Amino acid sequence: MASKKLVNSVAGCADDALAGLVACNPNLQLLQGHRVALRSDLDSLKGRVALLSGGGSGHEPAHAGFIGKGMLTGVIAGAVFTAPAVGSILAAIRAVAQVGTVGILLIVKNYTGDRLNFGLAREQARAEGIPVEMVVVGDDCAFTVVKKTGRRGLCGTVLIHKVAGALAEAGVGLKEITERVGVVAKAMGTLGVSLSSCTVPGSSKLTFNLAADEVELGLGIHGEAGVRRIKMATTDQIVTIMLDHMTNSSSVSHVSVQSGSSVVLMVNNLGGLSVLELGIVADAAVRTLEGRGVRVARALVGTFMSALEMPGFSLTLLLVDESLLKLIDAETTASAWPNMPKVPVTGRKRTRAAPSRPSETPDFTTEGTEPCCWGLISKRMALVLERVCTTLLDLEEYLNALDRVAGDGDCGTTHSRAARAIQEQLREGPPPGSPAKMLSELSLLLLEKMGGSSGALYGLFLTAAAQPLKASTDLPAWSAAMDAGLEAMRKYGKAAPGDRTMLDSLWAAGQELQALRNPNANLFHILTKAVESAEAAAQATKDMIAGAGRASYISSMKLDQPDPGAVAAAAILRAILEVLQNLEDA
Amino acid sequence: MASKKLVNSVAGCADDALAGLVACNPNLQLLQGHRVALRSDLDSLKGRVALLSGGGSGHEPAHAGFIGKGMLTGVIAGAVFTAPAVGSILAAIRAVAQVGTVGILLIVKNYTGDRLNFGLAREQARAEGIPVEMVVVGDDCAFTVVKKTGRRGLCGTVLIHKVAGALAEAGVGLKEITERVGVVAKAMGTLGVSLSSCTVPGSSKLTFNLAADEVELGLGIHGEAGVRRIKMATTDQIVTIMLDHMTNSSSVSHVSVQSGSSVVLMVNNLGGLSVLELGIVADAAVRTLEGRGVRVARALVGTFMSALEMPGFSLTLLLVDESLLKLIDAETTASAWPNMPKVPVTGRKRTRAAPSRPSETPDFTTEGTEPCCWGLISKRMALVLERVCTTLLDLEEYLNALDRVAGDGDCGTTHSRAARAIQEQLREGPPPGSPAKMLSELSLLLLEKMGGSSGALYGLFLTAAAQPLKASTDLPAWSAAMDAGLEAMRKYGKAAPGDRTMLDSLWAAGQELQALRNPNANLFHILTKAVESAEAAAQATKDMIAGAGRASYISSMKLDQPDPGAVAAAAILRAILEVLQNLEDA
Repeated sequence: MASKKLVNSVAGCADDALAGLVACNPNLQLLQGHRVALRSDLDSLKGRVALLSGGGSGHEPAHAGFIGKGMLTGVIAGAVFTAPAVGSILAAIRAVAQVGTVGILLIVKNYTGDRLNFGLAREQARAEGIPVEMVVVGDDCAFTVVKKTGRRGLCGTVLIHKVAGALAEAGVGLKEITERVGVVAKAMGTLGVSLSSCTVPGSSKLTFNLAADEVELGLGIHGEAGVRRIKMATTDQIVTIMLDHMTNSSSVSHVSVQSGSSVVLMVNNLGGLSVLELGIVADAAVRTLEGRGVRVARALVGTFMSALEMPGFSLTLLLVDESLLKLIDAETTASAWPNMPKVPVTGRKRTRAAPSRPSETPDFTTEGTEPCCWGLISKRMALVLERVCTTLLDLEEYLNALDRVAGDGDCGTTHSRAARAIQEQLREGPPPGSPAKMLSELSLLLLEKMGGSSGALYGLFLTAAAQPLKASTDLPAWSAAMDAGLEAMRKYGKAAPGDRTMLDSLWAAGQELQALRNPNANLFHILTKAVESAEAAAQATKDMIAGAGRASYISSMKLDQPDPGAVAAAAILRAILEVLQNLEDA
Repeated sequence: MASKKLVNSVAGCADDALAGLVACNPNLQLLQGHRVALRSDLDSLKGRVALLSGGGSGHEPAHAGFIGKGMLTGVIAGAVFTAPAVGSILAAIRAVAQVGTVGILLIVKNYTGDRLNFGLAREQARAEGIPVEMVVVGDDCAFTVVKKTGRRGLCGTVLIHKVAGALAEAGVGLKEITERVGVVAKAMGTLGVSLSSCTVPGSSKLTFNLAADEVELGLGIHGEAGVRRIKMATTDQIVTIMLDHMTNSSSVSHVSVQSGSSVVLMVNNLGGLSVLELGIVADAAVRTLEGRGVRVARALVGTFMSALEMPGFSLTLLLVDESLLKLIDAETTASAWPNMPKVPVTGRKRTRAAPSRPSETPDFTTEGTEPCCWGLISKRMALVLERVCTTLLDLEEYLNALDRVAGDGDCGTTHSRAARAIQEQLREGPPPGSPAKMLSELSLLLLEKMGGSSGALYGLFLTAAAQPLKASTDLPAWSAAMDAGLEAMRKYGKAAPGDRTMLDSLWAAGQELQALRNPNANLFHILTKAVESAEAAAQATKDMIAGAGRASYISSMKLDQPDPGAVAAAAILRAILEVLQNLEDA
């Protein structure tokens, strides 16, 4: 059985992929009867040099993604990992010549099939009187000794597309472009590494096999094995090995990058590497190069020249001066060329200082309660919080047991963690006397120490509840605080009363607390009713189907036990009531 | 053992990835002490609305890749697949507020953790007096019935970044941006599909498992399983199922796309899909939509919102009118936003007619040989070719046997294929009398029918050899033809004499044929010496180490058998000599 691939047919996969690219990019057109894509504004190129490239498919976005003003004129694609047909290369040359271009440069990766087929098409086109030059790019740094066939053409080819494209767009002639591009091609190197291989559509086999702790170094882009295997290591270590290999002056295929050099760095996804990992590689590459005194002038990070879904990457280094950088920076409409700032990577400030927490908000007013009373309030708050904490610690096991029915059994643990954090805070000093400030600080503490959705939901509740208490701390303000907290919880938590969450208890209490808004409200009478109502609501969750929160994933099952979050919330309210009543009685 | 990942540490992977992105993109800066990236030109935003987004890591390039002028102001990243810390969200809000922005919009994907943490930071920031609004994006089309928690936020969120960014850049106020973006968010839908799952760094397990013939439909972006499994099918079929599901008006989460609708299409790589396959998907999506009368206004194809290395994709459809398209088209410096032409995908011509083969090149001169003789020459050419063919057919087994020593044993088969193709051509009519034309036609024939490197090399040889024979067909011209052919073969094939290839025989013959340039050259004398020299050279390949061609991969081994390509070339020369001699003798 062949490997899973998203294709319509193995035979048609290269055609379909190119058709998709052309369909989605109105700057491109297919050449009828050939696997060739050309700029759709071809006729605007009269009097200019045209650039054609191509090769086997499976390296997308190379090369068709690099067609556009300022880069390639067109591309000829072969079947997967197979050189394009000479007839199609010739057809592309003729189409481009026909519009009145003054010369054509073929940019070819150094692989035998590509070299032969592009070479043959070139010879035939020249026989027809079309001026065609050819540059063969070999940027591979893998082999340390001379290979007759030369260095393989890899991701650096994309930089040649860019440089040649910028020159052609500037109106430079064929001979000069060919010469300059030849020089640039000699000033770069590429090395690839991969965690695994890839499978060609229609095949069931990986093109090579690696052990779980092995990494392939120095591979090409056709799934062929590399020059050696190394042990799996950290990204920093792998990047160091690669840069050592690429710049080692005893290797015939090295690139002469050393302290003081300016380079363009390409970090190229070979296809299947996560973009997360690619970012980690980019970080390691920039750090390592800068650590060696190399100036990274530009860094291109992305998928430029892939080997199907190979989970690996290649690094390319191109030695640059300011005039070459201008060509790299020149505008292009090519879809796969990245949006890249035209400023150096090395030498700028990469961090910004975070602003400090704003100083005490000045709007905690004292209306209703005199600041002179805050010392007293602070003491009472401390007693309330202490009782809330012991209540939650006592309930730990019971809440965990309830949570095991529908969740992961840690509801009690989470609430105990919060309780212990509050106790620790209380040992460090008394809570603020301003209720708004106290709730705000409690919010931050729970958020940091309680964790999970419960921490965030209590944090939300307390933060929102604190706001009405800034202006006033009379009884109507406390009802408004409860309402604000409930509203925030509903809004961001997306739970409603009846969804079997802690909101059920708090909501029931909030309804009773509305009575605090009456001019002659009796605090303890109302608070008692609120707590009783919360406890009843908590028990009522027994018969509810979970509509939000973690228990909702066990969807439509009745659980026959109350929701632990609702039970905990009711218990907290009961603890507050009891302490306040004791204080009143005292 | 955890899955292979290119990381320095599991704990630091989200930090390192963000650091890499910032290092390589000078438009970005990190906020000290937080996993936050911000525009480095933050201070230029005074008086404008700022946009913050973010979420768990593992979705790269989302969201930090979308920071830039015309898109996001900054991003807060959590650990892999984990909501960002409230403290960091708040720090980002404060940093952005500090530079004098007039309001901040938080763009949040609808996942509980993100909603809670961004919501809490918002409430806290508002308590500090900072105007902060929040839009929660839910574009998931997977669920057909109402979910209390709403639709999940997926790749469509990137379009919200774009629209909001364009509005903010245009100086629109916070309230209006929030409202308009809320409307746009309701006019889109996304559906994902994958061939396999992904593994979180540090974990050894795929987040779900699929059989070899199964595809997961309707998944989120955290490796969670989807709504159903379908059987592996062609890409066209899968895309059809997806578009049916997304636009089915009986589903509560459908997007109202129908005949006559204009849409922006996003084809998003979930991480590990080859770009080849992504192109095939894009082709299928555009074709299927257009087949339903939907106008594809723009198509974005690439990696926008990934789920680590998941080999799958999502489709997003956004209903658009011209005013919304202007916002999609607005300029941005965000690195991950694609270079995209500002013209419709639907309704343009996607193919260009290929130019026909140029008519008979007029420069076949008749110098040296009168056209009246060409009938005779044609007959002689036919005899020569016929003998070459029978010679090669006779050698098939011998050449295959020689090739089995160093190659894949098909050298004889390849040459026989060429011979049969020539025979067939001869049956259709006599070869052209013009030697240049004959060699050119032979070149095309071999190229098409012989195949492989041999076909290309003979094609190259013959094409190049034909050129000197256009101007003249006297004896010196034939020597020049041989030299031109050898030169082309060396240049594109990268073989030299001594490399154990067919070039060895041809080169030896070419040296002897130099003598044809002398005024009183004796054709048969020289030709005989050339053939003998070629045969000697072919035998001498026995002692050569392969330096080019397929045999070079068995590197430094001596093979003790002659190279089959060299043997074949010598045999062809012998056949030509014998026929010419017979004709002379007759």
